[in-house]
Parts: sequence; C-alpha cells; structure tokens
Amino acid sequence: MTHPIRVLGIDPGLRRMGWGVIEAIGNRLTFIASGTVTSNNKQDLAERLVQLHDGLSRIVELQAPMEAAVELTFVNKDAGATLKLGQARGVALLVPALAGLHVSEYAPNLVKKTVVGTGHAEKDQIRAMVKVLMPRATFDTDDAADALAIAICHAHHRGSTTGRLARAGAA
Amino acid sequence: MTHPIRVLGIDPGLRRMGWGVIEAIGNRLTFIASGTVTSNNKQDLAERLVQLHDGLSRIVELQAPMEAAVELTFVNKDAGATLKLGQARGVALLVPALAGLHVSEYAPNLVKKTVVGTGHAEKDQIRAMVKVLMPRATFDTDDAADALAIAICHAHHRGSTTGRLARAGAA
Repeated sequence: MTHPIRVLGIDPGLRRMGWGVIEAIGNRLTFIASGTVTSNNKQDLAERLVQLHDGLSRIVELQAPMEAAVELTFVNKDAGATLKLGQARGVALLVPALAGLHVSEYAPNLVKKTVVGTGHAEKDQIRAMVKVLMPRATFDTDDAADALAIAICHAHHRGSTTGRLARAGAA
Repeated sequence: MTHPIRVLGIDPGLRRMGWGVIEAIGNRLTFIASGTVTSNNKQDLAERLVQLHDGLSRIVELQAPMEAAVELTFVNKDAGATLKLGQARGVALLVPALAGLHVSEYAPNLVKKTVVGTGHAEKDQIRAMVKVLMPRATFDTDDAADALAIAICHAHHRGSTTGRLARAGAA
C-alpha cells in the first residue's frame, strides 16, 4: 500500500453538486482539492444537466482521480424532489464512469459513521471532523465538505470486506 | 413549413429506454426508426448509465435528430423506484442536450391526449394510434411505441403557444 490512491467524492444535487478529491496511502489522508459545481435554475432541466456534466467532466480531467464515490442520497420530500435529485445523481454517476473510473455508492449514515463515529451526525460535526482528519482541507460549501467526507469514507472501506458489503448494501 | 423537422422521442427507464425518430412537415408525419436501449441489471448502476448513454449517443449520431422530447414520467411506487427512474431520465435529457438539441418535456397525459384523444389511454390504444398515424411504423417494445408517441406529441405542440405552455407546465 505504498502508492497513493486518488479518490473523487461527489455529493449530488441539481442546484449544487459538491466534489472533493483526496489521496490516501493506507490510513494517511491528504487533501487535494474541493469545490461546488452549480447549475442555473432559470434554465431548462436538460441545459442544467449539461452544466453539471461539463463542470464535473473538467474536474475529472484536471484532478485525474483513480476511483470515485457518490453518496446514496434519499429525499424525504415529494416524488418531484426525488426525481430531480435522481436526474442530478445520474450525471454524478455517469461522468466518472465514462472516464473509466469505478464508482462506489455509500449510504449517508455509513459516511457519517466513518467520519464522525455516529450515523446521526450534523453538518457542522462533519465539517469539523473533515478538518481534524485533513487540517489543510478547505471547502466553499457544505456540499463540498460532504463530498470530502464521502471520499474519506471510500478510502476507509475500499478493498475491505466491510467496504464491499457496505457498497453491496448501498447499491 | 416545407422543411421536415426530425424529432427524437425518448421514453426513459433504467432497464429499457424506448426511442423513436419521426419527421414532420406541418401535420404530415413520417416514421424513420425506433428501438429500445437496454442496460444490464447485473451490473453496477454507474455502468448501466454508461450503457444507456452510449446507446442513446449512437442513435443521436446515426439518426441526426434536430429536436428531442422526453416523457415527464412519474412513479407511484416508492422513493427508491423514483430515484432509479430519475437517474435514467437524467441520461435521457443529457445525451441529446450534449449534442446541442433542445429537449422538451411532456407529461404522459398530454402525450396520450395528443395521440389517442384522451389523457387516460391504455398502452394498446397508443400502439394502435401510432400505427394509424404512421402506418409504416414498427416498434420492438411498448417503450419504443411510447417514444414514437412522445415524438408525435412534440411535432404537434412545438412552436405553438399551446406547446410552449404545455412544456412550461411540464418543466
């Protein structure tokens, strides 16, 4: 395990899509970059999906991650909100897969449990623990911080039996 | 209105995505092609979305449509099914938009009303009316027939005030 693994984490959303890139050598994590891709809610849905596609494609190209992880988000609101999220999530899964990356999915409570230690952590606890684990980490939005947490979760679970089971359970 | 408009209709779904291409000169409709893009449900979600993306991209390239229309589907089942459909629908909207096509959305009851005359038509009525409107039409699945109905709906409503309102209402 001497070669660093570069992981892209994505927190999907139609209006804001958080992304975070880290490198992992065993348990040692290094912050590389993070940010937020946005779509213009005054435009047609198809055009907004193109904006997310283009933004995310540029990040995959520039940051050259080797593996990707996407949060398996659920919405408790109406079917319309779930459909909207699903459409954005389709782009989040598609873009790294088109670049040949394997894309894992993790349920939010596993991400929280891995990063904070409990499945019911609040957003500020996630931000704080991302900073503890990677003091150099910066993020412009909660979505970018969540994306880093997803990348950390993948770094911890990838390759392990637990990780494989967790992914199978999430899929 | 002497130039034919070539329209791609898409009936989105994760397992089967129906597509249909027609040409319209005013009210005269001509069947061009139809079919079904499938994804392998034994593979990861991201890989399945790549299969749908690649299949649909080839159709856009080969059939060279000028405009696209996608059904605004709803699911009455659980949030999981809605999320799944949303992810496939994201790909259905993205692929023609990436090729520079404008993508309109139509609610199922408007598609049925336009093609059959009533918003509560059954699948066999849609198939029958697609054959009446375009006797040369062939389709391998109900999804492909639905996709042709969506293309017909767009051909009828595109450019008209009704069409624009219908699209705005559907978005």
